Amino acid sequence: VLGGRILVKAEGLQRTHSFKFRGAFNRISLIDPTECRNGVAAYSSGNHAQGVAAAAQCHGIPAVIVMPRDAPAMKIDNTRAYGAEVVLYDRKTESREAIGERIAEERSLTLVRPYDDPDVIAGQGTLGLELAEQARRLDADIDAVLVPVSGGGLVAGCALALERECPRAAVYAVEPDAYDDTCRSLAAGRRLRHAENASSICDALQVPTPGELTFSINARLLAGGVTVSDDDALAAMACAFRYFKLVVEPGGGVGLAALLAKRFDCRGKTVAVVCSGGNVDAALFGEALDRYGNQA
Amino acid sequence: VLGGRILVKAEGLQRTHSFKFRGAFNRISLIDPTECRNGVAAYSSGNHAQGVAAAAQCHGIPAVIVMPRDAPAMKIDNTRAYGAEVVLYDRKTESREAIGERIAEERSLTLVRPYDDPDVIAGQGTLGLELAEQARRLDADIDAVLVPVSGGGLVAGCALALERECPRAAVYAVEPDAYDDTCRSLAAGRRLRHAENASSICDALQVPTPGELTFSINARLLAGGVTVSDDDALAAMACAFRYFKLVVEPGGGVGLAALLAKRFDCRGKTVAVVCSGGNVDAALFGEALDRYGNQA
Repeated sequence: VLGGRILVKAEGLQRTHSFKFRGAFNRISLIDPTECRNGVAAYSSGNHAQGVAAAAQCHGIPAVIVMPRDAPAMKIDNTRAYGAEVVLYDRKTESREAIGERIAEERSLTLVRPYDDPDVIAGQGTLGLELAEQARRLDADIDAVLVPVSGGGLVAGCALALERECPRAAVYAVEPDAYDDTCRSLAAGRRLRHAENASSICDALQVPTPGELTFSINARLLAGGVTVSDDDALAAMACAFRYFKLVVEPGGGVGLAALLAKRFDCRGKTVAVVCSGGNVDAALFGEALDRYGNQA
Repeated sequence: VLGGRILVKAEGLQRTHSFKFRGAFNRISLIDPTECRNGVAAYSSGNHAQGVAAAAQCHGIPAVIVMPRDAPAMKIDNTRAYGAEVVLYDRKTESREAIGERIAEERSLTLVRPYDDPDVIAGQGTLGLELAEQARRLDADIDAVLVPVSGGGLVAGCALALERECPRAAVYAVEPDAYDDTCRSLAAGRRLRHAENASSICDALQVPTPGELTFSINARLLAGGVTVSDDDALAAMACAFRYFKLVVEPGGGVGLAALLAKRFDCRGKTVAVVCSGGNVDAALFGEALDRYGNQA
């Protein structure tokens, strides 16, 4: 129906059920062993939280994670289940960066930033390496890659990996309509914020402005940006349920949404879509099924 | 919490979203090319239907599939989408075997039986070969394998494969409480029917009695049988949603249900659970999430 060949990278099946484990694990594995006895700190709306908590657990060190009080319950529960201490804050009135940095300093913890860190970006880039390798095994020649974007670490890492491994693939950032800061910034050639009073069900994609390091990479390597509506994201979740038998969270499904909503034209192309995470509460998933579950 | 190591074989990610493609493809690939010009026929509650339809499409031959009128809409739609002609019948008053055999004879089609066929059993057995290979790669020493059972083709094929590849693994059949014909038959040492007026949400597991060929294999090789309730199956679907990010249909989830409901004790063991399919309508999946989606 879409007229193109679609390859799906299912990061809901990754450890901690999102790509975030990749960058967190790489960053923590590179901490000087004499430093990291006190552990790590991080701030995150949820997926980086789980990634850092699980990666710290793998390395046998403590983790303190600063999370918004309105994060999905599943993400908070899972972060605690990986053994981390969770500190909640108010997304509207407090700065997660300030709280995270204060805690890291007070307790002598290594701060694991969510995207503006070369070791985190390199870790996320392993997804791009796998994508290129898996496409080769399928004898698929990728024309375009659609990647959900918040701070831009995943897409930057993937673009760096694909620049070498799959140079003819055009890499696109996909964002919610309301959190279009990377799309605006790519168009303007400088870092801009999204519109005021933004709101979206894509809880994982709500960074106000691209990262400094990530944008310097993305401005050079990305082919462009695409945005989708919340309804498009819900329809993508229902599509993944029906046709792939995968649980995809709203922010994780924006790349697929861009195809289904025809915001990105894949006719005659081979397009790799990164479904970047699957941590969604049952109520919201049920809403996606109620509204779009019976569409073929 | 369960106290054992659980390995999940996710057949919802298989072609046609259940293991049935394996046996259908193997059987059709072994039809004498001079015979199969007219195509194949099959009767099925839904997953074998899709498997045969897709395997026939791969071989470029027509398929006629006899399906119950009350099969999940998704299974009927998908079977047609794989290019098959679907003939509906009434599960309560008509015999699918009789209709399937009549159509096969009238139109000179090769009948692809759902389980009582050595080539179908061999095809399903590829799941057992993969399970053994994947366990070796994880350095996991499997103590037990739980397999959803209807006619018994999948578990027979797996038991044959594992007898050679993984001889110390004990293979168990898992059925809905109401469709316990294989469990009863294994206990009695001869083929018995399930109780009268059986009813279950596990639409894929409603064969009245074990197959002749499959039971001869299963009576020799299986370690036993376990049954679960419909509520156990719904809870397993919600668990797969939450912890594996996989869509599992009720019949596909009975093995996982046996663990969660403590019908099978996995403490201190490495247990491989076959989640045999993911073809479930949105409404029933939503019900599983409503009822069990918020349990940790």
